[in-house]
Amino acid sequence: MVRAHELPQDFDAPDFPPGLVWLAGAGPGDPGLLTLHGLSALRRADVVVYDALVDERLLGWRRPGADAEYAGKRGGRPSPTQRAISLRLIDLARAGKRVLRLKGGDPFVFGRGGEEAQTLVRAGVPIRVTPGVTAGIGGLAYAGIPVTHREVNQAVTFVTGHDATGAMPGALDWGALAKGSPVIVMYMAMKHLGDIAGRLLAGGRDPAEPVAIASEATLPTMRVIETTLGRCAADAAEAGAAAPAIVCVGHVVALRQTLDWMAQLRGEPPRDLDPLGTQAALDRDAS
Amino acid sequence: MVRAHELPQDFDAPDFPPGLVWLAGAGPGDPGLLTLHGLSALRRADVVVYDALVDERLLGWRRPGADAEYAGKRGGRPSPTQRAISLRLIDLARAGKRVLRLKGGDPFVFGRGGEEAQTLVRAGVPIRVTPGVTAGIGGLAYAGIPVTHREVNQAVTFVTGHDATGAMPGALDWGALAKGSPVIVMYMAMKHLGDIAGRLLAGGRDPAEPVAIASEATLPTMRVIETTLGRCAADAAEAGAAAPAIVCVGHVVALRQTLDWMAQLRGEPPRDLDPLGTQAALDRDAS
Repeated sequence: MVRAHELPQDFDAPDFPPGLVWLAGAGPGDPGLLTLHGLSALRRADVVVYDALVDERLLGWRRPGADAEYAGKRGGRPSPTQRAISLRLIDLARAGKRVLRLKGGDPFVFGRGGEEAQTLVRAGVPIRVTPGVTAGIGGLAYAGIPVTHREVNQAVTFVTGHDATGAMPGALDWGALAKGSPVIVMYMAMKHLGDIAGRLLAGGRDPAEPVAIASEATLPTMRVIETTLGRCAADAAEAGAAAPAIVCVGHVVALRQTLDWMAQLRGEPPRDLDPLGTQAALDRDAS
Repeated sequence: MVRAHELPQDFDAPDFPPGLVWLAGAGPGDPGLLTLHGLSALRRADVVVYDALVDERLLGWRRPGADAEYAGKRGGRPSPTQRAISLRLIDLARAGKRVLRLKGGDPFVFGRGGEEAQTLVRAGVPIRVTPGVTAGIGGLAYAGIPVTHREVNQAVTFVTGHDATGAMPGALDWGALAKGSPVIVMYMAMKHLGDIAGRLLAGGRDPAEPVAIASEATLPTMRVIETTLGRCAADAAEAGAAAPAIVCVGHVVALRQTLDWMAQLRGEPPRDLDPLGTQAALDRDAS
């Protein structure tokens, strides 16, 4: 009999020698979305350097006696610079620690993990990278929204809603995104949501297009607002929706009327069984 | 002392009652990228209905006596229709089984998980959804390629390289993607790679733009080809690159020259410590 609380006997945990920095994604919030590699690193690290969005319960799973250092960056709060974080990781590694750098979501999706990794490699510090579930996919799954759906989109675009200084992201071509990306998933977009929606509308998107805003996605405190592109900024302000949040623009949002599985497990019926009006075709489909 | 092979004592495994279908992502291949929720479901399922891309080692972790049913869909091979798979899940649930539907990667990223979920909800079968690490992010991380990097891109687009019939995806606006998406990550793109590269070049992309093709990403058999947009189809054919593969188009691919951490852990030095020529600016950066 396999005991439910044991990792598999043949699970092949990678080496974690002293002096190595292991960059791992913690997932969007729910501790159950940590990967087995992430857990194996957490169990062995001498020090865990963690972000603002890493759940406290995860930190409780570290090896007894291991240190935990906060190195969060959140808009509007005093926080260490990226360079200071990277230099701290180098110091810890050079002191012979097993260093776990635990970042919310995935380290390489708008997480500046690439910059940290680059600075470490330049300093001669060995690294390992373990991806994580990113909030733009996993957070929306908890909200009952698939980021791709065959009848809706063959492409999905993930964008950041502000740059490193907090300003509107300057390098985005909103017109091309409006035209080429039927589903747009935005990270850190609450601050400039009105501006962003305006750019997408100017690019030809329909003000009636559905939008979902998922705050604290995957956590027990998750809140989801269903709105439209034309009304999302006003609705977010009225509802007091705050960061961290994922914003999804596109017709996949309508599927939440069928696929809000968390509400259904609480006993609520689905609101609509065919929100896209495609079910008859699906029932005949032979692919 | 915490034993390395135990799941945390306070890990909160969700209910898995008989008659429920649990859709979970298995991650891109490496069994260590399974989530804790995925493992907890695998330990308790009466039957695991799995895809072609789910690693056999994962199936070995199921509860002794639990059934495992193959329901893979792969281009060119005879495979059950999507509707047949959904109907089978309904039958198993109605027979009172705890059904784990384990899909490669993430169920909602080009996995037709939304269609399965919709059919189950319409049939009155309760579902739970657990996201997984998607190959377009996690597979590229193993190749040393971050899908976002502050100096390169504020947006990344994931596209499917063929539709349900195997043809070129008909609903994509390649010109808009070429213009609006500095990094394009493609799933199932090997079949039409030449056509796709041609569309992006016609949309104004540079034939010298770096491209990586990661086959069997995250597995010990992983192979990565570094090429360019102009040469990728010819290079893929010459190298015999085959599906499953992830194709990444964009300047983040150059970062692999610094960030190929798997090669570095095997003792190979980084090929270039500043492939984007931005390190001096990063060293001065105060954000």
